[in-house]
Amino acid sequence: LTDEDLDGLIAFFDLLSASESLRAVTQLSAKERDHLITILPSEIAAELVEEAPNEVAVDLVERLEADKAAEIMDTLGSDLQADVIGEMDQEEAEAILAEMTSEHAQDVRRLAAYDDDTAGGLMIAEVFTFRQSDSISQVLLQLASEEEEDERLRGQHPYVIDEDNKPIGVVSLRSLITSRRSASLSSIMVPAVTVLVSTPLDDLVDLFDKHSFLGLPVVEADGSLAGVVSRSAVEEALHERSEMQSLKRQGIVGDELRSMPLLLRSRRRLSWLSANIVLNIIAASVISAYEETLAAVIAIAIFLPMVSDMSGCSGNQAVGVSMRELTLGLVTSRDVFRVWLKEASIGIVNGIVLGLLIGMVAWIWKGNAYLGLVIGLALAINTVIAVSIGGIVPILLKRFGQDPAVASGPLLTTVTDMAGFFLVLSLAAFFMPQLLGA
Amino acid sequence: LTDEDLDGLIAFFDLLSASESLRAVTQLSAKERDHLITILPSEIAAELVEEAPNEVAVDLVERLEADKAAEIMDTLGSDLQADVIGEMDQEEAEAILAEMTSEHAQDVRRLAAYDDDTAGGLMIAEVFTFRQSDSISQVLLQLASEEEEDERLRGQHPYVIDEDNKPIGVVSLRSLITSRRSASLSSIMVPAVTVLVSTPLDDLVDLFDKHSFLGLPVVEADGSLAGVVSRSAVEEALHERSEMQSLKRQGIVGDELRSMPLLLRSRRRLSWLSANIVLNIIAASVISAYEETLAAVIAIAIFLPMVSDMSGCSGNQAVGVSMRELTLGLVTSRDVFRVWLKEASIGIVNGIVLGLLIGMVAWIWKGNAYLGLVIGLALAINTVIAVSIGGIVPILLKRFGQDPAVASGPLLTTVTDMAGFFLVLSLAAFFMPQLLGA
Repeated sequence: LTDEDLDGLIAFFDLLSASESLRAVTQLSAKERDHLITILPSEIAAELVEEAPNEVAVDLVERLEADKAAEIMDTLGSDLQADVIGEMDQEEAEAILAEMTSEHAQDVRRLAAYDDDTAGGLMIAEVFTFRQSDSISQVLLQLASEEEEDERLRGQHPYVIDEDNKPIGVVSLRSLITSRRSASLSSIMVPAVTVLVSTPLDDLVDLFDKHSFLGLPVVEADGSLAGVVSRSAVEEALHERSEMQSLKRQGIVGDELRSMPLLLRSRRRLSWLSANIVLNIIAASVISAYEETLAAVIAIAIFLPMVSDMSGCSGNQAVGVSMRELTLGLVTSRDVFRVWLKEASIGIVNGIVLGLLIGMVAWIWKGNAYLGLVIGLALAINTVIAVSIGGIVPILLKRFGQDPAVASGPLLTTVTDMAGFFLVLSLAAFFMPQLLGA
Repeated sequence: LTDEDLDGLIAFFDLLSASESLRAVTQLSAKERDHLITILPSEIAAELVEEAPNEVAVDLVERLEADKAAEIMDTLGSDLQADVIGEMDQEEAEAILAEMTSEHAQDVRRLAAYDDDTAGGLMIAEVFTFRQSDSISQVLLQLASEEEEDERLRGQHPYVIDEDNKPIGVVSLRSLITSRRSASLSSIMVPAVTVLVSTPLDDLVDLFDKHSFLGLPVVEADGSLAGVVSRSAVEEALHERSEMQSLKRQGIVGDELRSMPLLLRSRRRLSWLSANIVLNIIAASVISAYEETLAAVIAIAIFLPMVSDMSGCSGNQAVGVSMRELTLGLVTSRDVFRVWLKEASIGIVNGIVLGLLIGMVAWIWKGNAYLGLVIGLALAINTVIAVSIGGIVPILLKRFGQDPAVASGPLLTTVTDMAGFFLVLSLAAFFMPQLLGA
């Protein structure tokens, strides 16, 4: 990659979609990537930063000289600026902020202070504001002069603020068009629905579900206008959150991409796996307590992983349904008993079916009806235990302020492994004469 | 629930948010629910149907008399109408369509024919169209008379069509405001970006990423205007798809909620579990082949589930990262080798760490260094296998047109279980003299 190829490079990026460009860039080595982002014009670099997941965006920007980084940052929306700056080291962030236009830097400092999944964290600082005394023609002129394509103003209505910067009204397009151009905004505005900077994502989702607004003005605790949160920002945050939850369930910490350094990825994965080892040792200690039983009927060892795995799967289905119902707001922490009742019934039906199936397999495979009885009975009972736990654990975790996406799976697996091993081995110990006699 | 309480009931629903109402309704018995939806005013019933996941919406509507159902359906957006009607039995759907206003029924029949995750399946039929010869004041009058809050027209621009119903231009708000009111649209319109009814969701996501449009006109193969797909419909579909994928990974088929009948839920869960039994039996047959080895060193049985579970977790992390990179468009089917290389490196690092950890545990627990060696070595090698398979299987499944969300997990688990059992048991057989001699 040399500077002479720059024109070709720009032409190349023009041909690619944003995600294709990002793919190309993430496949470069860290050194090539740093060089590339330095020589690319800031508009193209900004597109890459916009498309990239947060951690990659930070990585791209923080390798640059502060002035080049500031140039790219200045072209981004204030919400993205705040996200990127918020994840940087204090020192680097300050160096870049110092080079940005002071107006932008001020907005970013303010926005970066809010929590990610609140109205403050999702809003943009750029707002379309007018005074009560402004006339319709002033608004129309402003509308006409604004870059209509500007994403940051997408879906905003003109908001009317008082002298304390408090939003007191909103003006509809229809009233703008149908009223005399000399009329003042106070005569056509309607009261604005506002949200607080601290309003959480879930409440925003509910509000946007209930109303058809494209954006809502966000106010500080003192009522002054802080920004506008758009419907699409809320939908994006919702999507991002559920993606993250799904990754967490699989033991991925943070926003791992294969372009990140090996040792960082390895360390993050190990942090989750090593917690899992401990849980596994606890479960395995149940087997260890029954070594004699196992030694007497070695065929049991074949079915131990099977019973624990099948129960784990059944329990996971219950976790999945509970997570979905929690997301949709269809269950609350008061519904633990109802959920348990529903899951236990399904556990009994599925437990009988699966127990019969696996019992027959064990009987036919090893020619021992009692082995079939032990394995089948253990799976049937453990299925009821697994779906009961799988159904209620996410709801209880949520009640106690824990993230159900992270802890439900490992908790469930440990309990169903332990219960499965215990059931198989204690039933085997109980039926030992019959198992050996057949 | 009696009819006399209706006023109280309406007041009650007015107090609840849409998701709270839905929660209340899904907790009723099927009979109570049917009665409730029959007596509720159709606006409130329509809100419930709008908020509900598709399967629940269908369930609510199809229990009603056709005329009442049609009344509710008529108040919904055409995209939702088509979704609900599309999932009903032919007969019931026809009965309801016959009672709907003929214009709506016609739109629904047309829309229900398109695939869900295409522009045709996501668009709404209600479009804001004008002729080239129309004047600006005609458009402004229309804008002013439309229900601006109507969600169906949210974010649409006025589209200009020719006599064949083909979109030839789009008019910006800015040009509407700044031009003479008597000017014709042909003088201010710009060419419209259109998509085909068959354009898939992923391409729509790319388009909306690249441009800041709030909506795009959708055309049939012959170029005639079929509807408008909005940015928020695309974002919603994307979110819904990733939720469904995450549920599928946990073995949930379709849109299960606990308000559905027990036997339906049980049957669906069993369909996935019974496939899993087969895979489990295949894996367990590896253990069966080594019964003699197991009988000689029974402590091995304690570590079999541990090695297979830990490898499964490592592999799942790789699946998670591949799924995310596929979603972000950062890997394609050409990247199999690159992904394998990246995963194998992480597998070697994590395999050594985990193998040492579990090897030490086995050694200390059972006081046998060779047992530690066997278990540790098996886990180290199996970790490399698991992350390699976990990383590339989703990409290969996608290349062969399969849904990676469904098949990756079970495939991975079966292979890592088999490889894990084989590694532990064959290494144990190899070191048998040392294992017994220590």
